[in-house]
Amino acid sequence: MRAVLLHGANDVRVDEVPMPRIVEDGDAIIKLAAACVCGSDLWPYRGIDPITTPVSAGHEYCGVVQEVGTSVRNVKPGDFVVGSFFASDNTCEICRAGYQSGCLNRHPMGAENCQAEYVRVPLADGTLVATPSMPDPDLIPSLLACSDVLGTGWFAAKAAEVGPDKTVAVIGDGAVGLLGVLSAKLLGAERIIAMSRHQPRQQLAIEFGATDIVTERGDEGVARIKELTGGLGVHSALEAVGTQESMMQAIRSTRRGGHVGFVGVSHDVNLPGLELFFSHVHLHGGPAPVRDYLPDLIGRVMNREINPGRVFDLELPFDQAAEAYRAMDERRAIKALLRF
Amino acid sequence: MRAVLLHGANDVRVDEVPMPRIVEDGDAIIKLAAACVCGSDLWPYRGIDPITTPVSAGHEYCGVVQEVGTSVRNVKPGDFVVGSFFASDNTCEICRAGYQSGCLNRHPMGAENCQAEYVRVPLADGTLVATPSMPDPDLIPSLLACSDVLGTGWFAAKAAEVGPDKTVAVIGDGAVGLLGVLSAKLLGAERIIAMSRHQPRQQLAIEFGATDIVTERGDEGVARIKELTGGLGVHSALEAVGTQESMMQAIRSTRRGGHVGFVGVSHDVNLPGLELFFSHVHLHGGPAPVRDYLPDLIGRVMNREINPGRVFDLELPFDQAAEAYRAMDERRAIKALLRF
Repeated sequence: MRAVLLHGANDVRVDEVPMPRIVEDGDAIIKLAAACVCGSDLWPYRGIDPITTPVSAGHEYCGVVQEVGTSVRNVKPGDFVVGSFFASDNTCEICRAGYQSGCLNRHPMGAENCQAEYVRVPLADGTLVATPSMPDPDLIPSLLACSDVLGTGWFAAKAAEVGPDKTVAVIGDGAVGLLGVLSAKLLGAERIIAMSRHQPRQQLAIEFGATDIVTERGDEGVARIKELTGGLGVHSALEAVGTQESMMQAIRSTRRGGHVGFVGVSHDVNLPGLELFFSHVHLHGGPAPVRDYLPDLIGRVMNREINPGRVFDLELPFDQAAEAYRAMDERRAIKALLRF
Repeated sequence: MRAVLLHGANDVRVDEVPMPRIVEDGDAIIKLAAACVCGSDLWPYRGIDPITTPVSAGHEYCGVVQEVGTSVRNVKPGDFVVGSFFASDNTCEICRAGYQSGCLNRHPMGAENCQAEYVRVPLADGTLVATPSMPDPDLIPSLLACSDVLGTGWFAAKAAEVGPDKTVAVIGDGAVGLLGVLSAKLLGAERIIAMSRHQPRQQLAIEFGATDIVTERGDEGVARIKELTGGLGVHSALEAVGTQESMMQAIRSTRRGGHVGFVGVSHDVNLPGLELFFSHVHLHGGPAPVRDYLPDLIGRVMNREINPGRVFDLELPFDQAAEAYRAMDERRAIKALLRF
């Protein structure tokens, strides 16, 4: 089968590799409906960590079950399924508390190859959620979005305690930030301030429910948020970047007693304790427990209540994976989908 | 009147100073029932910030109202009152959300002199809570504890979402940590692990409701907590020290999805973003909104349901304030009360 492999910084290739096979009794093999590139795939692409041997990429997936291990009960060949970027048993104490991405037996799907025609999913019973029926082809992008970017935006909004009567700021205009806007809207936020200086992304933010756009960044962005909120700051800030600047912008944009939900994977972030102490904010985040939200989010997609697949503004044939990475790296695309 | 003034590092004196007087219409003047030294008073005492001119100390207070400004309605001369270490209007949007210590018009009582015979309290209507009747003299230490250390321990427990069926760790065995133990008990925690290596403090922790004592610190302390909690860590950690070590100990002792409540004033703390991200903990803390809890806590003291005044293990005449500081600095006393 074909799979994307990173051979080095900026060196994305589509190679012929062996088909994945059942290794553990709890595994499933899935034929992927489409593949996609995540913003976090750009870190290795940019050579943050040196690549000495070709490595797999991607961690988002949905498609049709081909084969299951002997112990699998919850899904069967022919089911259309969506899973999270962390496989999880969904039975341990941490899973039962709603933190499946912290499962005691979790397995990062980044270690498999999700930018490929087929993928092995460990812990299939705990990880995979089947759609009630075979989805129409036009729903594939939205179902693929459930696997990470929508679930992660949703977690950011839940972690930031978004709800009715709340004013929300979203820092980051990538797919996760934009779907954080959509999540905040679905959770009933009264006002949603999207921070973006890119016109097409501003447009999509507004389509998803943003009521205000702020183009300023850093201290100026904070000042603008304060101006829009009677000097107090927002109730809830969603952080979807992962840098020192974006974290401090989120904390400083939030009113005393408010909530910051952070889902951007932290890169060289150090939070000053004394400022955090006097900020009086609540801070929560990390890898989103997407599994917990999948039944709800899949249902909303299947009912055509939401269209999170709108974040895919570039579709390419699978063999053009290199261009998909380039377009995202150069911010010409929000998120790229690869069709087989 | 007499007041404690810090003339320099380790130089505590009781001086004759002018009586405070009404400055604003909303002020009250209180005759203090007793005075006390807070752990945080030890930072200037130890010369962390150079003292160039004599400065006031202390920020905890309770006593009888002597005089009120023309706009004061909620308290009157003769009332016995308790207030928080931040005066607050209790009407702004931040106060109404339960964050009176973040009041838009807050005034730090450390800027007045609470280690004195009389003190001026601004924003008296929002700040002071009167007892239903004149308290018996033996209740004074417990009412004084409400002003900060009990309210702060209570906030740590609330911030850490302590409740029934929860396992709790308390980091710090000063007055706040010990009253964090008491607060966790009152909030219904199933198991309370106090971290302390000082026998008298361990004893008091047990009296307040601790079920386990851990004497190890740092990584060893974390390992011991994990051992006691099936490898998962606690649901709730209360941090009552304010150092890098204690903050990391709190975060690392908490299970994924759990809560850290931090109330130790941060000194040179920097939280590593990536570790926080993958820890999956909730983090909340800061200066406790004691005003919010005062009616409840005062009620429990007046009903003799609780005896938080037990943290005062040293009582001295006011003129021996210097010895009170010394005893706390050398950890011979948990907390010192000064009688007039």
